[in-house]
Amino acid sequence: MRWIRFSRPGAGHAYGIVEGERIREVRGTPFDAYEATGRMHLLSDVKIEVPVVPRTFYAAGLNYVHHIQEHAERLGEKVNVPVRAEIGYRAVNALVAHEEAVVIPADATQVEYEGELAVVIGRKARDLSEAEALSCVLGYTIGNDVSERDWQKIDRTFWRSKNTDTFKPMGPWIETELDLEAAQTTVRVNGTTTTQFRTADMLFGIAAFIAETTRYITLYPGDVMWMGTDGKSPTLSPGDVVEVEIGGIGVLRNPFVAEEG
Amino acid sequence: MRWIRFSRPGAGHAYGIVEGERIREVRGTPFDAYEATGRMHLLSDVKIEVPVVPRTFYAAGLNYVHHIQEHAERLGEKVNVPVRAEIGYRAVNALVAHEEAVVIPADATQVEYEGELAVVIGRKARDLSEAEALSCVLGYTIGNDVSERDWQKIDRTFWRSKNTDTFKPMGPWIETELDLEAAQTTVRVNGTTTTQFRTADMLFGIAAFIAETTRYITLYPGDVMWMGTDGKSPTLSPGDVVEVEIGGIGVLRNPFVAEEG
Repeated sequence: MRWIRFSRPGAGHAYGIVEGERIREVRGTPFDAYEATGRMHLLSDVKIEVPVVPRTFYAAGLNYVHHIQEHAERLGEKVNVPVRAEIGYRAVNALVAHEEAVVIPADATQVEYEGELAVVIGRKARDLSEAEALSCVLGYTIGNDVSERDWQKIDRTFWRSKNTDTFKPMGPWIETELDLEAAQTTVRVNGTTTTQFRTADMLFGIAAFIAETTRYITLYPGDVMWMGTDGKSPTLSPGDVVEVEIGGIGVLRNPFVAEEG
Repeated sequence: MRWIRFSRPGAGHAYGIVEGERIREVRGTPFDAYEATGRMHLLSDVKIEVPVVPRTFYAAGLNYVHHIQEHAERLGEKVNVPVRAEIGYRAVNALVAHEEAVVIPADATQVEYEGELAVVIGRKARDLSEAEALSCVLGYTIGNDVSERDWQKIDRTFWRSKNTDTFKPMGPWIETELDLEAAQTTVRVNGTTTTQFRTADMLFGIAAFIAETTRYITLYPGDVMWMGTDGKSPTLSPGDVVEVEIGGIGVLRNPFVAEEG
């Protein structure tokens, strides 16, 4: 099942279920009770919104070996592969939806993409074992963890480098059925494939992150956990269009534009 | 004016205005429109709730010179005083209200308090100068940035050390008028004063943090920004009661308890 959050002029936001090119609108949300409204819309007639605004926005950070090596080389640091599934954070202000613009700040010098699998939590969870961890997952969407690499070297936290407004595209929808073992992540810039990796090639899997996190932290319905990226990105410029595709979910597409002076 | 968020059995959550020992309940919130309901309650008859659940939970981190020196000595690091007002983050899962228990995990070894001024944002803000920065502030409350120091040394992020469930008491209410220059922060453990400092003795002030943050990031109504702490804390044990008092706001009091096996 494919959950979409959308808006129409004068009608506010609603959730619906995607059926081919159409949306079956519901009353309520996938995180609590919902019921059919009888209203159907064409996908092409609505604005797709961020699929959920999380209460807490978790991110695995470094979780694919090639990316960790490349990251260390770039910063001139030793390769330091994480030994535990330690979660990090991103900020809600930076979220934008499928097709919304990523704004490159006037003083940014090296903006890159990071195509990521995003896990959407469906129920309150604490102290889950790895075996039961996936029982709290509603489904999967796609994230682009846009990063400014020169700021990432000098910022004391990720506040600017990762959390500048518009730096966190997420969408287009939440897919509840995913064959993770078969999934490939493909990133295209202006239609040309620039990065491709097996989505499941993570250092620590989804169940490991959920089990480790919930030893200390309660996950809530609507929380999201981005699972990290592999490979490297070219430096992006205004006018570029970045597509992150994960097989079985869909395509998250965002144009990159210059900040207006 | 003093805004409180409270609940009563069978009546859900509401905002109200504190008048001495009584609360004038409103319909709506201090972040948008509100109107009087005519209902009055005794403060002693309600449960005080976290004054706001922020969309994004900002924290200044190291922002008082004595605390920075003490922090560096403890970690065996060079004293590294921040040169810019760079914001950090805490997580919403960890919030608890005035009088709610802070649960010390079974495997925690060194839990400490950090008494902090918490700024509550009242309106959407981007690109504010220092001169106009305080115009987006609704008021002030109190935070206790409870920290596990041994985890803080080894965790790759602050996920456990700062964001374990119940580690972020905030309250008891939002005071809209504060003479910051006159304010003192006092922390007491079991009634004995253990830390005291001038609240305004920050390395970077509130206006500097808001101006620097909003160059890249939009602040939203209900966001909070915790301003850091000074001095040091004893190691806390189950049974301790910690009070953080900021003159002109009030007292945030929380018992510390052991995790149940």
